[in-house]
Amino acid sequence: MNTINEKFHNLKDVKSASEAELESALQELTSNITGLDEKSIAGMQARLDAKIKPLRSLGVLEDIAQQIAGVQGTAQPKITGKAVLLMAGDHGVVAEGVSAAPQEVTAELFYAYMNKNGGVNIIARSGGGDVIATDIGIAGPLNPPELMASRVKNGTDNMAKGPAMSRKEALQALFTGAKVARDAINSGINLLATGEVGIGNTTPSSALISVFTGCSIEEVTGRGTGIKDDALIHKQEVIKKAIQINNIDIKDPVGTLAKIGGLEIAALVGAILEAAYKKVPIILDGIISTAAALTAAQIAPVATKYMISSHSSEEKGCRIGLQQLGLEPRIAFNMRLGEGTGAALMFPTIDTALRVADEMATYEAAGVTTGDY
Amino acid sequence: MNTINEKFHNLKDVKSASEAELESALQELTSNITGLDEKSIAGMQARLDAKIKPLRSLGVLEDIAQQIAGVQGTAQPKITGKAVLLMAGDHGVVAEGVSAAPQEVTAELFYAYMNKNGGVNIIARSGGGDVIATDIGIAGPLNPPELMASRVKNGTDNMAKGPAMSRKEALQALFTGAKVARDAINSGINLLATGEVGIGNTTPSSALISVFTGCSIEEVTGRGTGIKDDALIHKQEVIKKAIQINNIDIKDPVGTLAKIGGLEIAALVGAILEAAYKKVPIILDGIISTAAALTAAQIAPVATKYMISSHSSEEKGCRIGLQQLGLEPRIAFNMRLGEGTGAALMFPTIDTALRVADEMATYEAAGVTTGDY
Repeated sequence: MNTINEKFHNLKDVKSASEAELESALQELTSNITGLDEKSIAGMQARLDAKIKPLRSLGVLEDIAQQIAGVQGTAQPKITGKAVLLMAGDHGVVAEGVSAAPQEVTAELFYAYMNKNGGVNIIARSGGGDVIATDIGIAGPLNPPELMASRVKNGTDNMAKGPAMSRKEALQALFTGAKVARDAINSGINLLATGEVGIGNTTPSSALISVFTGCSIEEVTGRGTGIKDDALIHKQEVIKKAIQINNIDIKDPVGTLAKIGGLEIAALVGAILEAAYKKVPIILDGIISTAAALTAAQIAPVATKYMISSHSSEEKGCRIGLQQLGLEPRIAFNMRLGEGTGAALMFPTIDTALRVADEMATYEAAGVTTGDY
Repeated sequence: MNTINEKFHNLKDVKSASEAELESALQELTSNITGLDEKSIAGMQARLDAKIKPLRSLGVLEDIAQQIAGVQGTAQPKITGKAVLLMAGDHGVVAEGVSAAPQEVTAELFYAYMNKNGGVNIIARSGGGDVIATDIGIAGPLNPPELMASRVKNGTDNMAKGPAMSRKEALQALFTGAKVARDAINSGINLLATGEVGIGNTTPSSALISVFTGCSIEEVTGRGTGIKDDALIHKQEVIKKAIQINNIDIKDPVGTLAKIGGLEIAALVGAILEAAYKKVPIILDGIISTAAALTAAQIAPVATKYMISSHSSEEKGCRIGLQQLGLEPRIAFNMRLGEGTGAALMFPTIDTALRVADEMATYEAAGVTTGDY
């Protein structure tokens, strides 16, 4: 199972690799992602069907238990550790005035995640999980400088004027995200969630979702941290311009990600692909995560089998993107914070789904009358 | 605050009270339910608005934190204990063939709840809560007989042939449920959830929801534990007949509850009213809980302020009933088990909502730039 992408275990290798080596590693990584184990899914279904309840009456809890059985390749799956992988990156497109918040907020919030008191830290901790925050491409300096060790670039370039990144930078960001996921998994974490911070990042996310779903910019673009009506129309125009001037080829997902994506989005694409490769389920958050998931699915369609949906954020592109992935939002909490806050809300639910399989009585043990119900 | 209903602290008093005494106690109970504390709600909002996030961007988590602040009358609310109040009762209307499962299943499942391995026990435990199961009106005997100590009647009568209960029995069941809630609250539990078991109980629930919402029987009646198409049409006809022959007067909610309700539904009505009286929030589960909540709201409209919605069950009457209460389902898990399983899924979320208020950094402490976002 340890294929060529393991070459990039050491971050220095990602930074020193040539573009051709990175392309070849991605090819190798994606071709080694396989589907779920059907026997384990059936084994979990048999366990759940024996419980004292009408068949399938625990709905999505049962779906999740079966999915995790198939992912782990056992009818007795266990969660040994949970973490939100929070990727941070800035966006040159904020020069176009697409965001309500100033760019320095990305770095300021990043310190809060490191101090374990950002929103996602509280929600993850409450659900028994950690937050692993990584600077993939914040624009300004961080202090101490070690916080910038994984940074690929000081923010993307303005996608309304040219590509957001070079192809090589996108691949570097992708493999940095994959490494973060791999390190987490190697430390015993086997339930991941996607999170991000990056002022302006609903803009590239809407762009990617529009391209990969074929839906119009208007359909998939929302207010981000809270822009007003005029600014929303302007944001939509900026996205249209970015797609137009960058000559997008949907059949080249990495190229599309480089041109109209973001560094933290690319890192999430890598984290999703690595999770699927390592057979670990990954919970999606809101619109940015959904954009990353659509990109990952474009690179390796089978990766969708490892994804678990969480909420439908207030950003309307989120639901449309999830639908394209064959997923449905499960929590309707009208949240629009990002960071992985919606995904982390699912942590307790996933523990609960597996506890039902482990602890709930069977018809036989409890002596409950069976029947066609 | 300890008004006349405290006379019924001792279950013997409920059983020995006259109908007039019970009516008077209900009058006293409901007239002592007051609204939420607006100052505490505003205080919680101020705390949340100071956090490093766009205003209101944690959506329902913020709504819940504010509601609980208003319920507890402090901007620093705490949850000290959580429990599902699971009320068990049988239904004479099963003689009409409205359910896919045989009646003995109610008692069989009841033992599982006592043994802490029913579905709701697992889900509540996973969320840090207990299940308090009470036999309000199971049809057959339980062993040991002490399990039947709170039983009001051996199942309801067939509502398709006459009233399900006498008015006095409905009031006894209501006050038994109130006592269960009161005992739980006095033991330190300050977050309640409604749960139930009772083969056939989606039938009276659909009847009550139809009456109290004005929606047609067809709109609010589903498949319960899993009846087929013909049986669904038959179930709808049985409900129509029950409503017709019982001369329902919507302005008399207790009479309506007695005629087309259930013993466990009446107990849940009492638990909801007592929770509101004692200023404790109560999470609603699926269609049976919603029917009880609509009845409680008909008796004391202000009680709705103490209710928290959870999932929208597969029973379509659930969503319609919630809407009438001004509530929206927050979890879409396609569950149809009952027992309080959907409500118990909310336990971790409510802990999380209060932890956000307690632990998340403020703009001031974290040094994050503020602005109009």
